[in-house]
Amino acid sequence: MSENEQSLPSVTDLTVEEKASLTSGGDVWHLQGIESKGIPGYMITDGPHGLRKANSEPTGETDLNDSVPATCFPPAAGLASSWNPDLVREVGEAMGEECVQEKVAVILGPGVNIKRNPLGGRCFEYWSEDPYLAGHEAVGIVEGVQSKGVGTSLKHFAANNQETDRLRISARISPRALREIYLPAFEYIVKTAQPWTVMCSYNRINGVHSAQNRWLLTDVLRDEWGFEGIVMSDWGADHDRVASLNAGLNLEMPPTGTDDRIVAAVRDGRIQPSQLDAMAQGMIDLADKARPAMSRDGYRFDVDAHHDIARRAAAESIVMLKNEDAILPVSKSAKIAVIGEFARTPRYQGGGSSHITPTRMTSFLDAAAERGADVTFAPGFTLDLAPADPALESQAVNAAKGADVVLMFMGLPEAAESEGFDRTNIDLPVKQIELLSQVAAVNANVVVILSNGSVVSVSPWASQAKGILESWLLGQAGGAAVADIVFGDRSPSGKLAQTIPLDIDDDPTMMNWPGEEGHVDYGEGVFVGYRYYDMFGKTVDYPFGYGLSYTTFDIADVTATRSGANDVTVRATVTNTGAVSGAEIVQVYVAPGKADVARPRHELKGFAKVSLAPGESRDVAVELDSRAFAYWSEKFDDWHVEAGEYMIEVGVSSRDIVATVPVALDGDGKAMPLDDWSTFGEWSADPVGAKVVAALEAAGERGEMPKLPGDPMMRIFLMSSPINSMSMVVGEGGLSITEFMLNEYAKLTK
Amino acid sequence: MSENEQSLPSVTDLTVEEKASLTSGGDVWHLQGIESKGIPGYMITDGPHGLRKANSEPTGETDLNDSVPATCFPPAAGLASSWNPDLVREVGEAMGEECVQEKVAVILGPGVNIKRNPLGGRCFEYWSEDPYLAGHEAVGIVEGVQSKGVGTSLKHFAANNQETDRLRISARISPRALREIYLPAFEYIVKTAQPWTVMCSYNRINGVHSAQNRWLLTDVLRDEWGFEGIVMSDWGADHDRVASLNAGLNLEMPPTGTDDRIVAAVRDGRIQPSQLDAMAQGMIDLADKARPAMSRDGYRFDVDAHHDIARRAAAESIVMLKNEDAILPVSKSAKIAVIGEFARTPRYQGGGSSHITPTRMTSFLDAAAERGADVTFAPGFTLDLAPADPALESQAVNAAKGADVVLMFMGLPEAAESEGFDRTNIDLPVKQIELLSQVAAVNANVVVILSNGSVVSVSPWASQAKGILESWLLGQAGGAAVADIVFGDRSPSGKLAQTIPLDIDDDPTMMNWPGEEGHVDYGEGVFVGYRYYDMFGKTVDYPFGYGLSYTTFDIADVTATRSGANDVTVRATVTNTGAVSGAEIVQVYVAPGKADVARPRHELKGFAKVSLAPGESRDVAVELDSRAFAYWSEKFDDWHVEAGEYMIEVGVSSRDIVATVPVALDGDGKAMPLDDWSTFGEWSADPVGAKVVAALEAAGERGEMPKLPGDPMMRIFLMSSPINSMSMVVGEGGLSITEFMLNEYAKLTK
Repeated sequence: MSENEQSLPSVTDLTVEEKASLTSGGDVWHLQGIESKGIPGYMITDGPHGLRKANSEPTGETDLNDSVPATCFPPAAGLASSWNPDLVREVGEAMGEECVQEKVAVILGPGVNIKRNPLGGRCFEYWSEDPYLAGHEAVGIVEGVQSKGVGTSLKHFAANNQETDRLRISARISPRALREIYLPAFEYIVKTAQPWTVMCSYNRINGVHSAQNRWLLTDVLRDEWGFEGIVMSDWGADHDRVASLNAGLNLEMPPTGTDDRIVAAVRDGRIQPSQLDAMAQGMIDLADKARPAMSRDGYRFDVDAHHDIARRAAAESIVMLKNEDAILPVSKSAKIAVIGEFARTPRYQGGGSSHITPTRMTSFLDAAAERGADVTFAPGFTLDLAPADPALESQAVNAAKGADVVLMFMGLPEAAESEGFDRTNIDLPVKQIELLSQVAAVNANVVVILSNGSVVSVSPWASQAKGILESWLLGQAGGAAVADIVFGDRSPSGKLAQTIPLDIDDDPTMMNWPGEEGHVDYGEGVFVGYRYYDMFGKTVDYPFGYGLSYTTFDIADVTATRSGANDVTVRATVTNTGAVSGAEIVQVYVAPGKADVARPRHELKGFAKVSLAPGESRDVAVELDSRAFAYWSEKFDDWHVEAGEYMIEVGVSSRDIVATVPVALDGDGKAMPLDDWSTFGEWSADPVGAKVVAALEAAGERGEMPKLPGDPMMRIFLMSSPINSMSMVVGEGGLSITEFMLNEYAKLTK
Repeated sequence: MSENEQSLPSVTDLTVEEKASLTSGGDVWHLQGIESKGIPGYMITDGPHGLRKANSEPTGETDLNDSVPATCFPPAAGLASSWNPDLVREVGEAMGEECVQEKVAVILGPGVNIKRNPLGGRCFEYWSEDPYLAGHEAVGIVEGVQSKGVGTSLKHFAANNQETDRLRISARISPRALREIYLPAFEYIVKTAQPWTVMCSYNRINGVHSAQNRWLLTDVLRDEWGFEGIVMSDWGADHDRVASLNAGLNLEMPPTGTDDRIVAAVRDGRIQPSQLDAMAQGMIDLADKARPAMSRDGYRFDVDAHHDIARRAAAESIVMLKNEDAILPVSKSAKIAVIGEFARTPRYQGGGSSHITPTRMTSFLDAAAERGADVTFAPGFTLDLAPADPALESQAVNAAKGADVVLMFMGLPEAAESEGFDRTNIDLPVKQIELLSQVAAVNANVVVILSNGSVVSVSPWASQAKGILESWLLGQAGGAAVADIVFGDRSPSGKLAQTIPLDIDDDPTMMNWPGEEGHVDYGEGVFVGYRYYDMFGKTVDYPFGYGLSYTTFDIADVTATRSGANDVTVRATVTNTGAVSGAEIVQVYVAPGKADVARPRHELKGFAKVSLAPGESRDVAVELDSRAFAYWSEKFDDWHVEAGEYMIEVGVSSRDIVATVPVALDGDGKAMPLDDWSTFGEWSADPVGAKVVAALEAAGERGEMPKLPGDPMMRIFLMSSPINSMSMVVGEGGLSITEFMLNEYAKLTK
């Protein structure tokens, strides 16, 4: 009987001590095994855009940059711009294969936290300001990796939207913002793809640490969403073994050697044996799921094929922001000046726990040389914080002078963004902007190619460039991918997964960023990103969903038809009306009509990426279920779909809607019963309530009850008053108005 | 022995039933008396900008517009623009005298709620978006009224900043915003002037109704601030007699006939007898304080003198926003077209409980006629919601054609703003703006005179007027006061007590306005009004503190000198450098330097209004105590003054600072002790903590304790980690890092 066929023991076969041992790691990068019982202690390593398997033996001494080579795919900030879940799944499959080779049972990603504010230090690792987009793209990583028999860890659960004081900060968030903005990406992925593990975040939510948050880890994650895997702590996020285990945390990472506290707590009743059993069984089940893949000795992934995937993924991640005079694509036979150190030394990933050692690296200069392009290179500036170097600058200006076109590689140096700290502005380094001015003064044909994990402002210098490519961080094949776009081998097809604001001070979260004294109030509620900018009509630099192509598209025949009480099918026909192949992203936004709560003007609820040859047409269909129309109601403590008209907007960015179609929905029929806190207006609007009000007025006429005021102004006041504001009684021991009304209501509704 | 000399009984002389009876009113506008015990049941009536003593006998049927004549002073929105506490005190004295004549023991005002959002329906009754200004002006009402032996009721306590769902809504506010924005006006007035009564608000704060909020009514109001008077409910705000009385509510208004519930609760222990005694004794003390004034039979106030005060107050309330080509003042001999129904039918107060029946009324037309000005009048539009009337319009345009100057009276009709509902926009009616266009097309010399209780937007039409007077609501003498300004008998000296935004969607509260499902999140925190606009550099139409004059002023020799550890005296010399008399308002803002929390760029902390003849100079001094520099710290649950440099800004609006002087303060020395939630960074920054960290590292070297990571990135993570994130232990039963550090710290600090 091979290892695979031998089933693992169940918790009933283990001692309390053994069960407790399973609830912390074996070491900093391993699960705890129990050799005597045949439970393996598999390795787990950082992701999320490639494998970061530490090279050295774990000693407690961690060097985040020393890991075995692995394909470095574009970090999420790039990949998110692809709007292509199938592509993301391919990336996931490739990562899964690399895990199999390296015997890694779980890769720690994807991270689907919302980019609440562009200054967030870890924005480069996250997907979007929009939870629908984040969930529907990142799910591909989970599906892809897990299709190879390897687990993922959906992180950081939840509301870990900044680095400042991240280990202590309490994110104070309304239930509605939490449900509509900060949880849905997790919810969708859990329900759709069952990630083997979820990693809880460091921070607190409304005062409770995620690791100790039973509401979050058990009530919502498991009981509401049906999560079947295990929850592990972020590294160092577990501050109280007993409280965490009771909350639903299966695994403390890294281990602190304190399993005896679990044992003691079971002994003295602070932990129910059934709770320890459940947590430990989860760990055994995890090992069991990983066994087949972990037993595949000698498996080697295809380094070249994975590099190709990384290259395609990178190319789809590039967003063309500007292309005046069709300056792009550039002919290989043009005399090209390439300026900027980034062209030689690409910035292709962010710093911190996600830092990958790539299997190979192609710079843009390498890729241009491979193509035999006529290139003169000048670094122009250094990637450190040193001031501008006049010698480098004049070399760059000279290179620009004689060129047909200047490709100017600008971006954020590595020191500007990393896990561990938040940015304080969204500006490019001054020396780069100044060099651009000098270059633009001698050559009008400048294309700027940006490398940055988080948003940088564009408007301060955009007028000096005819073309702008936002290439984010593109992983190891970024140089080749940029060349693919620049030289027209592929048309750009990326769209912004986040708004580029004019000024960071326009951001609605700035009033509460990054918080203070241990808390950060999410005062903007649901109005994050374009939900704010579009609602309040604020000018932005480039809107959410924006991106240009080398070809043109027509979207026509947009229809929205009811397929259920609160379900709608949206259809459209997309045609490539230009001269080259390309891909368009059809975006479906839902704009609610009159609503009981303040809803964003519209929200992304569906999208479809369509690749088309010139002249080709394709029909797309996007299904919207009731959640596409729902808001989270504190009143019902549940999702709520109001009856009425909604507008279905189909467009190519949140600010470029090409068709708007109304649909009328039945709503979910939820209604609150009338009570003493309902207003006279609410009672009067209800069929039964109106009868009660009439009975009260009649009793008032008969002198049996106090009369309601008749003065018009007082009547206005009355209609907005809960009935218990009118607690006058007539006579000794008489009924109050409230009592009278509740009695009558009970009679009429029983 | 006269009534006055006979002292009132104490609660010890009363039965439980009698005591309970004192805790609700005698009727809707009277306190409960106990005739047998000689306790009078005095009348109390609405204010706050004059007496609203209902004409009819109280029957439960209330007609808010039927009251005995009283001087209608400018509502707070107007008076606030005077920045003149002495003038406000005069108004208060006059109102006190009217109360004495009418035998009103308490006038229900002033209302000092913050204008959180300009759409708030009751903004016309409130003072400012700034709590310092609101408190330092409204205190004059309390001092003035009470100097006449009559009480005031400081309202609506607290955080009643909107009308929408005001009886139920829970204002969810951070402790800091509550303490820095929503409570300070109340706090200052309570501490300075001891209003006889405070009226609790309808709304809830963080879930608790104000009437039942013991923290608010007892812990803060009485125990922290030393309030000695009684708290009454807003009319209908008491939903639970027992809970409210226990919270510190002395008086339920109007009475609901439920005093027996109080008696029962005392009998069954839900109310402590001492609590009922305290609440009832407050009511006896109130009656006692009112007795001398209420016994002055036959007193008559001076109607003419009060009208004059109302006129002066109105004149100082007018803010000149624009005066191109010195179009103002207007010569009496000019040929003047007066356009706009408001010139004949002034809008001089708002609707709702504050509606006064004036002793007399002067329209602008009356006042101009009195002066013998050469005036042609055309109403131009009606004050109802009817569409534009072409006949009225052409009459107005014709009047404008031949005139030297057009005085165009525009504003909000009565239906646009009232207690009971919030506005939905800040626009003037379209028909008025269209008429202005027509008038401006035929006459370039247009002066717009605005009548509105709450802010209206100016920029959409401002280019068509050479002069703009924002005259708010000015009370019964408004017409005469506007004439005083228009014809140059007085120079305008009002300054905006609130920002005029370009667009209501610029307001930081719009993301949370007016709330939903029973709550409103004050998500903007302390960034209300100019605190937001100035912090984030947003363009506004007219900034807080702005206002023009017919003369010019110079502010020089600005100094700021320490007068204590955290106290500063600011001095400046103001000179009237123009040709006519006028008054300047010297505004002192404090701009904190580096702070532990996100503080507004600057905040008003002092002001002085100086009237000067041409050429005259005067020195002003403004004292700033520690509160001028403090923020509310959630960490300390107290005010906190950080040591360091602060900038003292002296200016004539929040955007027009004429001098900036640094001061260095000692700070209050408050510091939190290190604990297990303090980060390694915080430990390392503390002198004793650093020794503990050194001891830990030494123990690590010796192998007795886990070693701290050395990798630079890990070191960054470490510094932001609380020490309890590193709970690894070495060996069986070893100390965790946290335990080791806390032990060492205890040794070093004991």
